[in-house]
Order: sequence, then structure tokens, then C-alpha cells
Amino acid sequence: MGSFTDIGVSAGINILSALGFLLAFAVLRIQPINDRVYFPKWYLKGTRSSPRTLGAFSKFVNADLSTYLRFLNWMPAALKMPEPELIEHAGLDSTVYVRIYLLGLKIFVPIAMLAFAVLVPVNWTSGTLETEKSVTYDEIDKLSISNLGKGSKRFWAHIGMSYVFTFWTFYVLYHEYKVVTTMRLRFLANQNRRPDQYTVLVQNVPPDPDESVSEHVEHFFAVNHRDHYLTHQIVYNANHLSGLVEKKKGLQNWLIYYENQHAKHPAKRPTMKTGLWGLWGRRVDAIEYYLKEIEELCKQEDEERQKVITDPNSIMPAAFVSFKTRWGAAVCAQTQQTSNPTVWLTEWAPEPRDVYWANLAIPFVELSIRRLLMAVLLFFLTFFFMVPIAFVQSLANLDDIERRLPLLKPLIERNSLKSIIQGFLPGIVLKIFLILLPTILMTMSKIEGHISLSGLDRRTASKYYLFLFVNVFLGSVITGTAFQQLDNFIHQSANKIPEIVGESIPMKATFFMSYIMVDGWAGVAAEVLRLKPLVMFHIKNTFLVRTEHDREQAMDPGSLDFYNSEPRLQLYFLLGLVYAVITPILLPFIIVFFSLAYIVFRHQIINVYNQQYESGAQFWPDVHRRLLIALMSSQILLLGLLSTQEAEKSTVALLPLPVLSLWFHWVCKGRFEPAFVKFPLQDAMVKDTLERAHDPTFSLREYLKGAYVHPVFQKNDIYERVAIDEEEKNPLVVTKRQSRMNTPVESKFTSSSGTNEGEFSRLPT
Amino acid sequence: MGSFTDIGVSAGINILSALGFLLAFAVLRIQPINDRVYFPKWYLKGTRSSPRTLGAFSKFVNADLSTYLRFLNWMPAALKMPEPELIEHAGLDSTVYVRIYLLGLKIFVPIAMLAFAVLVPVNWTSGTLETEKSVTYDEIDKLSISNLGKGSKRFWAHIGMSYVFTFWTFYVLYHEYKVVTTMRLRFLANQNRRPDQYTVLVQNVPPDPDESVSEHVEHFFAVNHRDHYLTHQIVYNANHLSGLVEKKKGLQNWLIYYENQHAKHPAKRPTMKTGLWGLWGRRVDAIEYYLKEIEELCKQEDEERQKVITDPNSIMPAAFVSFKTRWGAAVCAQTQQTSNPTVWLTEWAPEPRDVYWANLAIPFVELSIRRLLMAVLLFFLTFFFMVPIAFVQSLANLDDIERRLPLLKPLIERNSLKSIIQGFLPGIVLKIFLILLPTILMTMSKIEGHISLSGLDRRTASKYYLFLFVNVFLGSVITGTAFQQLDNFIHQSANKIPEIVGESIPMKATFFMSYIMVDGWAGVAAEVLRLKPLVMFHIKNTFLVRTEHDREQAMDPGSLDFYNSEPRLQLYFLLGLVYAVITPILLPFIIVFFSLAYIVFRHQIINVYNQQYESGAQFWPDVHRRLLIALMSSQILLLGLLSTQEAEKSTVALLPLPVLSLWFHWVCKGRFEPAFVKFPLQDAMVKDTLERAHDPTFSLREYLKGAYVHPVFQKNDIYERVAIDEEEKNPLVVTKRQSRMNTPVESKFTSSSGTNEGEFSRLPT
Repeated sequence: MGSFTDIGVSAGINILSALGFLLAFAVLRIQPINDRVYFPKWYLKGTRSSPRTLGAFSKFVNADLSTYLRFLNWMPAALKMPEPELIEHAGLDSTVYVRIYLLGLKIFVPIAMLAFAVLVPVNWTSGTLETEKSVTYDEIDKLSISNLGKGSKRFWAHIGMSYVFTFWTFYVLYHEYKVVTTMRLRFLANQNRRPDQYTVLVQNVPPDPDESVSEHVEHFFAVNHRDHYLTHQIVYNANHLSGLVEKKKGLQNWLIYYENQHAKHPAKRPTMKTGLWGLWGRRVDAIEYYLKEIEELCKQEDEERQKVITDPNSIMPAAFVSFKTRWGAAVCAQTQQTSNPTVWLTEWAPEPRDVYWANLAIPFVELSIRRLLMAVLLFFLTFFFMVPIAFVQSLANLDDIERRLPLLKPLIERNSLKSIIQGFLPGIVLKIFLILLPTILMTMSKIEGHISLSGLDRRTASKYYLFLFVNVFLGSVITGTAFQQLDNFIHQSANKIPEIVGESIPMKATFFMSYIMVDGWAGVAAEVLRLKPLVMFHIKNTFLVRTEHDREQAMDPGSLDFYNSEPRLQLYFLLGLVYAVITPILLPFIIVFFSLAYIVFRHQIINVYNQQYESGAQFWPDVHRRLLIALMSSQILLLGLLSTQEAEKSTVALLPLPVLSLWFHWVCKGRFEPAFVKFPLQDAMVKDTLERAHDPTFSLREYLKGAYVHPVFQKNDIYERVAIDEEEKNPLVVTKRQSRMNTPVESKFTSSSGTNEGEFSRLPT
Repeated sequence: MGSFTDIGVSAGINILSALGFLLAFAVLRIQPINDRVYFPKWYLKGTRSSPRTLGAFSKFVNADLSTYLRFLNWMPAALKMPEPELIEHAGLDSTVYVRIYLLGLKIFVPIAMLAFAVLVPVNWTSGTLETEKSVTYDEIDKLSISNLGKGSKRFWAHIGMSYVFTFWTFYVLYHEYKVVTTMRLRFLANQNRRPDQYTVLVQNVPPDPDESVSEHVEHFFAVNHRDHYLTHQIVYNANHLSGLVEKKKGLQNWLIYYENQHAKHPAKRPTMKTGLWGLWGRRVDAIEYYLKEIEELCKQEDEERQKVITDPNSIMPAAFVSFKTRWGAAVCAQTQQTSNPTVWLTEWAPEPRDVYWANLAIPFVELSIRRLLMAVLLFFLTFFFMVPIAFVQSLANLDDIERRLPLLKPLIERNSLKSIIQGFLPGIVLKIFLILLPTILMTMSKIEGHISLSGLDRRTASKYYLFLFVNVFLGSVITGTAFQQLDNFIHQSANKIPEIVGESIPMKATFFMSYIMVDGWAGVAAEVLRLKPLVMFHIKNTFLVRTEHDREQAMDPGSLDFYNSEPRLQLYFLLGLVYAVITPILLPFIIVFFSLAYIVFRHQIINVYNQQYESGAQFWPDVHRRLLIALMSSQILLLGLLSTQEAEKSTVALLPLPVLSLWFHWVCKGRFEPAFVKFPLQDAMVKDTLERAHDPTFSLREYLKGAYVHPVFQKNDIYERVAIDEEEKNPLVVTKRQSRMNTPVESKFTSSSGTNEGEFSRLPT
């Protein structure tokens, strides 16, 4: 364990780097040239179409010095937007996600105060470390549980506090689950008419020798949901067609680019080479060439489109079935249709933009085999990921490279370079793996066959959490690879495992403090700076942006990436709960992280992120479950730690805690989880009745037509716009969006639109 | 381990005792006087009302010697009834239950043949035990895996066989699950109109300040199931009233008895004393006394009845809600009603006779607390049951008794008696506990708040299986109390546990062989003899039977007692699967048990048992799950055993087995379990449509009226009769019951009914 000085130095460095990021952000964000990097959400919402400039002076650099003085003004601004408006602006998913950080504060601020009032004095005054001369210790150890002698009576204070912390966490978690449930139910109740409210996804339609899939679906539901069935939409396998459409889009961009060039220099027809990357081949007239290419592709596309629609093999045994009422859809989604539970599987249709089209047609048995394989793979990935990494690292051995590419020898042989590469290469291989890991896990989830993007996110988050728990948390506490740990654990007794882990935990407090500062503080500050999107935007803007559409593409607002960010965030809950009793000094670091992250992510969801879908906070049961896993781990590890301190008898007093936590989990699951899985009939009936009274002549069939058509069959991205339009027309609260276009910092800017467009498109390609 | 001779002697004794039981049964069953003990089912069915007698010779003793010669004829007779008729005669529950024994044969006969063809020669020819002079061994050990030397290559044969056995078990289990599912679905589809098909049980109706429970229920369902709601039945808390009704029944029996006496001796008015048990008190005219008592009780009962109906406090917040169609009921049972998932909880109503009325009104939160408490209690009961037993045993210490009751001293001090009592007393206390255990567990299940008798049976069976697995199976393998084992296991490493158990398993083969013979063979033979009901019937018949109704009561057909018998039976699957690879010589014992039990229980369900309810084989998922637990235990224990035999590398080849078993469990669960939990809408729709076409004028409201009224509000047991009548009227197959009244053995008897009634009622009281 480090001394106060060590921690102080480390904290200083990290605070400075975090402040550096924040300062850079504060400066960069008020430059008009970066407007599309730091405020893309407003562009996508359609309320802003060009950066605000400072009068006529500069379109690229902000020269108003007074704005620099108020460079931290974005922080209160981020907190200002009230929650109902935030839901309407950024969606319920994002709003609830940000509440997780707030939840961290709600849990840890009172716990920290209590711990500092009770446990720190108890630890500090014990003085066991001072009397034992043989042990080297630091000041921080004196504040931790290590300062208590073996068999001390003072452990009762820790046991008592453990109960208090547990019950406080129960209370906050229960309350939060209740609030989120209410928010979700209100959100669903206030939602305007949406196609997914009436629609159920049917999978595994059994083959019928006499009828097509479409006829079969129609007959089945017309019979078994006689009074409620309205219409259905067949699912086509259009993967090849999407490829063609993508290709055509690219060609069209090039065509527009050359047409623009020609318009600027009417005298000179633009030419190009047909070969690879325009470097080789015959020189041709570019506009003519692309017109011809596009024409050809259009023909191909039409053929493919015809083929998909007419070929029975490209029809998947799945369909989106719509009902006359929400009640009918709710009934169909929650019931079993036939006596064979592997066919005619029904579930709520995800939002149209949330559908993961490629997975709609996996048979039941194949699905269970895929899940088995992925479960086995996940196990190996979690516990044995070091094996392939070590193999790649050994391949990347310099001597090996020398032997294969002798001409690099003189370069490599230089001693300084060699040692640097030798030192970095293994680390880089591991780093690349860790960066790729969420993507690998996401691919595994896709293979598992989930049918919505939100479902994929949730499943991937579970996998990632397992990996982080085993390899980052346990792996840092007990040094060694996960594989070695697994081997250790198998050969240890059941009560030895928490003992081993528990015993090492106090010693790792300093390490985790540094971890929180580096990964938490600096990481969050780096998040707000958006370094990568910033650089990428400017590179694209300079070299690649040819059309206005390209600039839209270059904007990359990103999204919350639940599958990647939530498991990392859970790690802080785990650390906080584990160290709350053992080394309370760690708690302030966690609290700083949660405060900073809360402000930053609230700012990001308001100004930057553009969520891909809206699931209505369906991830909350997962978040809650992982929080309880963290709580139970902390209880079991404390149990393990105390049982090594010759306080066995008092340790028994901790045994009810994990049982209570498990029970609390079941209570919450029974009390709240159905609201995230099922849609109650009463609510459906209320909405149906209101709607019938309000709009009796509405043609639902017309409305639903095309809602669940595969994106490639829709000429434009109509379906995305529809959802947003609906939201705009009938906001939850009266929107203040017009006035918010001028957030405090930018309040003086006058928006002068239109003039920049030419400016940007005239940039060299 | 014992030698062949030991096992032979033990087998001989047990075979003899089993044969003795069977012989006694064969003789006793053909005595007319025992007819109501061995054929009560036929009396209850109403197809037999008096024993068949041999002409005029004797009503008590069978004197036709030829019938004694064919004394084992009941065995083929028991096998003769075809399955569809058996379902119609004894119900699906009983029929499927008997199939479990057949399943045992299907699994173990091929496994035994393969094991004897492959593993026994492999073990026998190894000869390690012969070369190691230091080890004492028996012949049986030479047939078991112990005969292989450490690190022998021959273990591969066992690993291979383990795979073969696993896949064979998978195949049989999958097939059986499929068959049972089909049977259940066909049974439900063929069932005639029954009240539970239209009815849903609603629990936790929230209180409403303005409306009564009944109004609230009516309004809620009339709104939210507008097109389907028909009527509902409120649930009253009528526990006190049932007490009064019971008391009245007893008094009425006495009245009938005295009236009978008076009728036989008209000259003498029967008199009685009013005090305790008719021994003390004033002598009064018995008939007058009872007439007055009954009149008073009737008045009390009427008052209580009025009070229950009018007092709002005796109305429970639960109701049976009936729908116009099965479709409507299926929808309501499977969906969530309101956004608060702890109120308006709906589930399929159990059959009227399956309802456990006392548990209908437990609030959601109380329910979860009760379940937590029972789970904790079950844990302690399983692992620490020896603690209170030991305490009681120490109380029953003779020296202690001597000190407290000095007058017994001379009696106890006799040495021979003392040692006998000292030896037996602790055993008797334990035995009493074990006999009471299923009842204790059933009480715990009742406290958990399940609302149907079938549900109580299933939950109790799970608890009992856990107890047997830990205390009988593990407790026999590793000698010592469960508490010591638990302590051991906690202090052992995770992979040590299967090693310890696995290592002791081969040594316990002889013990389990004896266990199978005593508990299995002799136990089953004792079951068919029905010693306790036989004795009780004759005691009651001699001393207590006063009226015909009393004789009906004295009959005690019993039932399968799923909660008690199924877990014991599962133990044989566990033993068979565990020893299949390790000591195959045990398998024939298992096979004999399953064959004998199959015949005996098939005979019993045809002739004796009277099931209390019909759940449609809803217990099968539990049976299947426990079978898979047994399979996985066998795999893990084999793994543990092999890892102690210096065959670590080959052991790894066994690792996929438990994973595959777990996966198989999930596949079966997804594929079949919904058929046992939900009722598919298609099937409901088909039945509704057929019924509408068949019987368009039927008044469902009239039919359902009173179906779910608390038994005490029904004058007679109408509701039980209704269910049976329905079954009679429209049997699944054309019934052969009339002809089957003469089963082969009794084919010569001519039934002369009526004359015995007086005979029996004239027996002295």
C-alpha cells in the first residue's frame, strides 16, 4: 500500500490531466468549426443546420474573449434541463442511464459520511500496526481494517456498519427500481401512437405444404385471434440487396461530388481513372462514368428486389403481425399460441429502428445449439483469454521477425529501439485485444440470435461484466492470470476462496484508487473532449467531405454504447461496496467519479449522443441485478476477510447478509420486473379506449403499412423520421427547445445560416 | 465390501420376505372380508357395492381352492388394462406416475446389458487387486472399477461408456417427455367441459374504498376483458364454519347409530351419558339428546353462515373469475393485468377439488417473507436435523429418566432390559422423525402459500428429494452426519468434494444393494399387502363402524402420495446412474425393483388408490429435472473418482458431460415445459369452436354457478361427483368397465349385492 504522499502525487497528476481535458474541451467547444463535433444532437434534431458564428468575423475561430472566461459554464447548463424535458429530448434510455451515476451518489455519499464518522476513527485508534514493529505500514493502512488486531472486538463495528450499508443500499435500490418503473410506465402511457404498440413479432412459423408463409400467418391469426388480428408484414432475407443499395449510395456521392466540381469550373469536364482507387486505368469522363455505373446498378437492384419479393426462398419464416388494438397485441405477445412451444413464438415487436434484421429466422433447435456454443466460448474467453494472447505475443517476438524479414535486421538491432519494442509489443497486443473485446462479445451476442439491437446491447453487457469482474476485479486482487486463479480456486476449499480474495483486498486499495483516477476521472474527462471524433471529423472534413450528405456522415455523434459503458461503470459500484467497510478512504474517489461522470454524461446526452433505438429503460433489471451481485460479492468478501482475522464467531453474524440480498433480489424481481417484460392489459385497454374516443375514423391499417418493411425497401429513412415526428408533434412537456438553442454560453451568438455551406464544400477533397 | 456370499444371504432373506408379503397378499385379497381393503377403487367408482362371495357358503372366507392355485394371477391382470383405459379409470396423474417405473426399466435394461457386455469383462480381467497383496478384496470388487490400477488405460472404456449411457438417458428422457406432453395435451383436449377450463383464480385484489371486493372484481374484468368476462365467485374465509359442519356430521353419525339400535330393539330406548366419552355424567335418552344437539348446532351453523356471507371481513381479496370462452380464460391466465405486478395476480384455477382453500388470501409481501423463512428452515432441517434429534435422544437417556421417575428404577435396572432400551431408544426417536418428515415438509409447503393440493405435493417432493439426496445418499457414502459433511465440504476445495464422494462410492455398493433389497423389494411387496389399512379397516369395522357411511370412511383407499413416494423413487434412479459405470453389478437389483414396483403400483392404481385431484401430469417437469440432477451427479462423481485414479488427462474428457446435461435440461425446458404451465390459445380456440357448433344453447353461467363455492356451502359433495360424472358420460375410449368388474381371478364369482349390508351393520360396535 502506498503512503499518503504517493496517493497525493498520483491524484495530482490525474486531477491535472482531467483538468487539462476539461480546459481543452471548454476552449474547443466554443469554436464554430467544432460545432458539429460537440453539438451533433441539435443538428440531427433539425434545430440547428450550421454553426453559430460571431458576427462576420470568423466562421472557424471564436474571438469573443468573454466566452473564454466562462469556460466551465457548460456544467451547470448540463444540469439545468429538467428530467421530463430530458426524456423528451434524449429518450428514456439515456435519461435513465444517467440516473445510474446519480444512484452511485445516492448510495455512496451517505455511506461515506457514516464510514468516516464511525469506521475511520475505529480503525485509526486501534494502533495495532504501530505496536507490531515487524510490519511495515503506511498512513493509509491505519485508516483501513488492517489496523485492527486479530480477534479484536472492534470488528463488531464493521459488522454493524455492513448491515447498515446493506440496508441503505436495499432502500436506495428499491426506491430507484420503483422510480424507474414508474418512469417507464408513464413513458409508455404517454407515448403517441407507434407501430410497435400494435405489433407482435412471430418467429418460427412452421412450413406448410399448401400455403405460403404469408397465407399461413394470415390464416393462423385470423382464426386464433379472430376479433383482433389486423394485418401482417412478411420478413424478407434482403442482405444481398442491402449490399447493392449501400454501393449505389457511394456511387451517387461520387457523382454529386463531380457534378459540384463541374458546376464550379464549367469549362473543364472532370475526369478520373477507372482502376484501383483512381490511380490506374483508363481516364474517362467522371460524370458520364458514374451515371452509367449507377444506371447499371439500378438495374441490378431492381432485379434483386424482384427476386427477393418473388422467390419463396427469400421469405423468412417470421412475420410482424399487427392487431386492431393494443390489447390484442398485448394478449398475443404474452400467450402461447400452439401446443408446440417451439413454433409460432410471439413476442413484442421491437421498434422498427431497433430490429436486428439478420437474426429473424433462426430455428429453435439451432438457437439452443448456438447459445450452448457461445456459453462455452464465453467461459473460455473469460478464463483462458491469455492463451491466444500469449501465442500472438510469442509470434510478435523480435527475433522471430528478424529471422523472417532479414532486411529489417539492422533497424531492429539498434539496442534502444529493440528494448522499446520488446517492452511495448506484448502490452500492445493485449491492449488491442481489450479494445476489440466489446466488439467480440457483441458478435457473440449476434450469433446467439437476439432480434433487437437493445437485446444485443443487454446481453453483451452481461458478458462484458463477467469478463471485467473476473479479469479486472479478481485479477487485480489476486495477481495472476484468470486461468491460474481458476486453477487455484478449483484446488481451494469453498470457504478458502473468499478468504484468499478477502485477505488481499485491503492491500489493493491504493491500486484501485489509482485505477479510479486514471480510468474514472481522466477517462470521463477525455470522454467529454471527444478526441477521436474531433480528429476524425476534421480529417474527413478536410480530405473526404464532398457533399452535404458526407458532412452529415462525418459528424458521428456516437451513442451511449450501453454494452461497453455500463459494465465498466458497474465496476465502480463493486469497488465502492467492497471497500466501504474495509478501506473507507477509497469512497471519496468513487464519489468524485460519479459526480463528474454524471455532469459529463448528462451534457453528452443533451448535446452529442444520438441513440439508435428507444427501449424504454428495458435494461434496468440487468443494472439492478449487477448491483446486487456487487453487493453480495462485497458481503462474501468481508466474510472471507473477517474469518482470517480470528473473529470467526462474529463472522457468523454476517451470514444472513447474502441470504437477505438474494431474497431482496427475488422480491424486487417479482415486484418490478414484469413491468419491463410484459405490457399490462389494463394500460393497453385505457390507451385503446382513449384513442377510439379521440380519433374514431383513424385508419390503422394505412398507418401500419410499411412500418416494418425492411429498410432497403424504403426509399428514404422514412421510418426513422416518423418516430421522431410523432415525438415532436406531441411532446411530453411543452418544449423549450427553441430557447435552448442558445445555451448560456452561446447566448450572444447570432445564428447566420446558409453562408457556410459553400465554404465547406469548397474545401479541397 | 461384502463377498458374493454375504450378498447372496442378504438377497435370499429379502427375496423370501418379499415373497412372503406377496403370498400373504395373494391369500388375503381373495377373501371377501378384505374386499374393501384391496379393491376400494371399485367401490368408490360405484361399480361395486359389496364383496363378491362364493355362492352362499361364506361371506368372510374364500373356500374355492382353485383360486388359491392362481394366486399370482393379479400380476398379468395388472398389466392388462391398456393405457387409454387406465387414464380414464385412474386419471392421467396416476398413469403417468406409473410410467416413471417403466422409464426406469427403459433406461437401465439397455445400460445394464451394455455394462455387463463391456465394463464387467474389462474390470474382471484387470486383476490389479490380485497383484496387490496388501489389499483385502472381495469377489464383487473384482467386477467394479476398483479392480483397475491407478492410471490404467482401461479407464477409457468407462469414459466411453459414460458417454453412451448419458446419450442413451438423454434419448429416453427426451422421448418420454415428448410422450408425456402429448398425453397431457390429448388429455386436456379430450376432457369434457369442466369449470376450471373457463376459470381463472385472481389473488391480491387491491382494496377499494368505494366498492366491495365483488363489485371491484366485476368492474375490473368487465372493463379489461370486455368481450370475454362472464361471472365470478367470491372466496369466503369459512374455516370456522367448516369446523361446525364437521362437528355436525359426527353428531349425525351417532344419531343414526342410536336410531339403528332402537330399530333393532324397539322395546328399549337407547340411553347414554353426557360426560367425557360417555363414561361420566347424567344418563339421558340418546336419540332425544342428539336431536337437540344437532338442532342447536344447525342454528349455530346458520348464524355462522349468515355471518360469513354478510360480514365484509370474511370476504378474502381473491376470486374465481369465469369467462365466456376457454380462449378468454387462457388469455387472462397468461397475461399481466395491471402495471403493479403484485395485485390482480391471475393464474389458471385448479380443479375445484384441488383447491387448497386456506391459502387463497396471502398478500404478496407476506408470501415472499414466508418463502424466505421456509427456505432458511429447509436448509437447517436438511443439514442440522441431527441437532434436535440428538437433544431429544439425550432427554430420553435412561439415567435421566431414572432420576426423574425413581419408581421405575427397579424395572430399568434389570440389565437385559436396560441395554435393549438404551440401544433402541435413540433409533426410535430418529425413526419417528423420519416418518414424520414428509408431513413436516408438507406443512412447510402449506406455509409457503401454494394454492392447490397438486402444487403442495410438487413443492414438498422437491424438499424431500433434497433431504434424501443429502442425508440418505451423500450421508451413506460419507459416513457422518450431514452437519459434519457440510463442515467438511466447506473446508474442502471445490474439486475435492466430488473426489471424496467419488472415492467412497465403489466401497458402498454392497450397502446400497442391501438398501435396494430392503427398502425397494420388500418395501414394494409390503405396499401391495397394505398391512396398515388392512389392520385399521378390521379394527374400525369391529369396534367403530356404526353406519354405512362409517364403513365408507373406514375404507381408506389412500392415494399415490406423490410428495412422499416420488422422491424415494428418484433415489433408485440416482443409485442406478451413479453405479452404472462404477459397479454395474448393482444394476440388476435396480431393474428388479423397477419391474416389481411397476406391476405393484399399476395394480394399486387400478384397484386401490383414489387420487384427490387430477393435475394432468403437471409434475412431469419436476420428475424430469430430478432425473437430470441424478444424471449430472453421476457424471460429476465419476469425474471425482477418476481424478483420484491418476487418470487426470482422461478425466478431462468427462468435462463436457455435465455441460451437455445442463444444456439438455434447457432444451427440454424450452421445448416441453410450457405445455405444463400454459394453455395454448389455438387449442382453446378449437375447443370453443367445436363446443359452440355442438351445443349452441348451453348456459355456461348456469353451469359454472356454484362450481367454485367453498365446500361447506355445498350441501353434499356435489362438486366431486360432477367431475366424475362428466368423465363417465364421455370416456376417452369406449369403456370396458362393466366387463372388467370380473378381472381374471374373480371371473367365476357371481356378484350378489345387497345382502351384506345388514350383515355388516349388525357387527358389534
